[in-house]
Amino acid sequence: MFSRRHPSQPSKVLVFGAGNFGSCLASHLGDSRHDVYMWARELSLIEHFNKYHKNPMYLKDHQFPDNITAVGPSMPTKEFLDDMDVLLFAIPTQFLRENLKALKPLLNIENMPLLIFVNKGIEIGTHALTLEIIADTCGSDIAKAATFISGPSFAAEIVQRQPTSVSVASFTESEAQKASELFHQPHFRCYTNGDPIGIELSGALKNVYAIAAGMSDGLGFKNNTRAMIITRGLAEMTCIGAAYGASPLTFLGLAGVGDLFLTCSSSNSRNYTVGHRLGAGESLCEIMKTLGSVAEGVSTAKGVKKYIDELGVKAPIASSVYDVLYSGKDVRMAVRELMELPPSRELELPPTAGEPARQLLEKLGVDQVDIPRRWPVFG
Amino acid sequence: MFSRRHPSQPSKVLVFGAGNFGSCLASHLGDSRHDVYMWARELSLIEHFNKYHKNPMYLKDHQFPDNITAVGPSMPTKEFLDDMDVLLFAIPTQFLRENLKALKPLLNIENMPLLIFVNKGIEIGTHALTLEIIADTCGSDIAKAATFISGPSFAAEIVQRQPTSVSVASFTESEAQKASELFHQPHFRCYTNGDPIGIELSGALKNVYAIAAGMSDGLGFKNNTRAMIITRGLAEMTCIGAAYGASPLTFLGLAGVGDLFLTCSSSNSRNYTVGHRLGAGESLCEIMKTLGSVAEGVSTAKGVKKYIDELGVKAPIASSVYDVLYSGKDVRMAVRELMELPPSRELELPPTAGEPARQLLEKLGVDQVDIPRRWPVFG
Repeated sequence: MFSRRHPSQPSKVLVFGAGNFGSCLASHLGDSRHDVYMWARELSLIEHFNKYHKNPMYLKDHQFPDNITAVGPSMPTKEFLDDMDVLLFAIPTQFLRENLKALKPLLNIENMPLLIFVNKGIEIGTHALTLEIIADTCGSDIAKAATFISGPSFAAEIVQRQPTSVSVASFTESEAQKASELFHQPHFRCYTNGDPIGIELSGALKNVYAIAAGMSDGLGFKNNTRAMIITRGLAEMTCIGAAYGASPLTFLGLAGVGDLFLTCSSSNSRNYTVGHRLGAGESLCEIMKTLGSVAEGVSTAKGVKKYIDELGVKAPIASSVYDVLYSGKDVRMAVRELMELPPSRELELPPTAGEPARQLLEKLGVDQVDIPRRWPVFG
Repeated sequence: MFSRRHPSQPSKVLVFGAGNFGSCLASHLGDSRHDVYMWARELSLIEHFNKYHKNPMYLKDHQFPDNITAVGPSMPTKEFLDDMDVLLFAIPTQFLRENLKALKPLLNIENMPLLIFVNKGIEIGTHALTLEIIADTCGSDIAKAATFISGPSFAAEIVQRQPTSVSVASFTESEAQKASELFHQPHFRCYTNGDPIGIELSGALKNVYAIAAGMSDGLGFKNNTRAMIITRGLAEMTCIGAAYGASPLTFLGLAGVGDLFLTCSSSNSRNYTVGHRLGAGESLCEIMKTLGSVAEGVSTAKGVKKYIDELGVKAPIASSVYDVLYSGKDVRMAVRELMELPPSRELELPPTAGEPARQLLEKLGVDQVDIPRRWPVFG
């Protein structure tokens, strides 16, 4: 399946979600002369935005371009959707299933817009990736054509036109190229990638390692230690990803090491902050009371722990984060146990791999023959 | 070839070089209860060290363990060398060839110590890796057994026992394991790796990208941009490495992304500092006059440029660094041209690869059949 046409200049884009990242991407697309509609659930936000072109909740100081219109809070009509070239989903993973279910009957399968997803994380309960949520709610053809954007991109810097790069992934390369062309600017570079599973796993897993990096800094360790945690964390992410069936090379990219590096080295990251405060001696309960917003890594750690156990891979850092968050393990004890692990080889990819991806690809109807080509290590 | 015995506790270790990293590793090994001899070229340093157990030039505040003896400045005798379990080379790459030439006649081939190399960079003029310098001066059997240590490891933090991890690489896995066991401590973790070519290339290339990261910060760009440069730099390193014949996965490791991250995000790095001052508008000439020490990336950029041209890979960031350093290109113009490159796929590994590594492996007599297994992408 392909979306109905090449996004021309200007495209009509509907952004679902008016949070930090959704409104920043709406701003970028408006800045790039597309006609942008931003759907929000709060009527007061919609009215405020359309009056002042400011978002009262996020990027509060930013003046949004005039060609963005806030819409909602009811679901857009079939006619409105039919007129859109692009639907961009910037709503939390945990709300995606219900929104896609509501949206599906309104979509014209014969005349599909380009679908772009920028949410991160694993669905609580099902441990499903977004790809699977799309397949469950909209069918495999739509999931195969879906595109995913991920990379090191603080919203506040994007709206300042600070040079930024992201990965744009899809099983359907031509769709990834369309999404790339929609977003690409000299200050916003897009790189296409054919491994959406790896891109999704990177985006979810990195938040768990940001908690670990924060813990290390909170405990008072220095540069060598943080570089070690980021690198060994990346090796764990790569192992988990490879065991799942993603390409290990995806973790070398912008959504992998790029976003991991950004998230692990900035006090702007909520996940890093949770780790830092745990390392400094606060309890998770105290932190969650005062943090004021969700740190996705805290819930993702549960799903990751399930992946680790089911796939049988070694991921001692992620397991330790889980133990500190959910089993009351002392942070210092967790670090000491990590340091006392025996020496090992640098990257031990699992000998057999890819079962979850194989199942997901089967569900999507993606040709299984492609797997060894995409990930040749165990071809 | 294997070194004569398993390094027992304590081993006798001779460290060649009393610079920042050599003396830090001597301190770590002394701290680990090995008998350490540190060879220096300056008589005054040797006398000062043996009297006060301090290095007057590097890590000046650090009190070295008592079981380290400074030796030199003449070359150690055959008898002295014969008594050593380990020789550790911590001298600049540019002086390695002459030192190994002088050393070779003193080595007992039937009773070899473990050889460990921690120098980084490419030999000026020949563009040779250390592996090739060893093969040229000591023969291929000794080069095949040589081990290489690299990773994110500021010397000042190692002597404070800050948790640190490194890669230990060799074509001879049992030798890498010996080196790993010699160094391994709870606060100094060693990970073995079978791709010394990739480890060497990582160590050299990262300094060029540290200059690029410094330039970006010097120009006033922020977190997204630095994360982009580090990640796209890593992709370039991986492409150059793969084209040379290294494993792309090595660049995911401690010597790759780990050291790149450390070097690119610290004003302690001389290479980063050179880039930062270039970005802020100083000329290379002014910077070199006042820097007070060599920034290896400045000379490595020349060798890397030669690799890029000969291998026919795209490495626009490294090429831009070369142009700014050696062709008088304006830093802002270089950045603008980088940002205006057309969109591309995320990781384009070269379609044919490995010729330099094949030639080097042939010189070493390493079984060529191993190459596809080590780097299966184009097997």
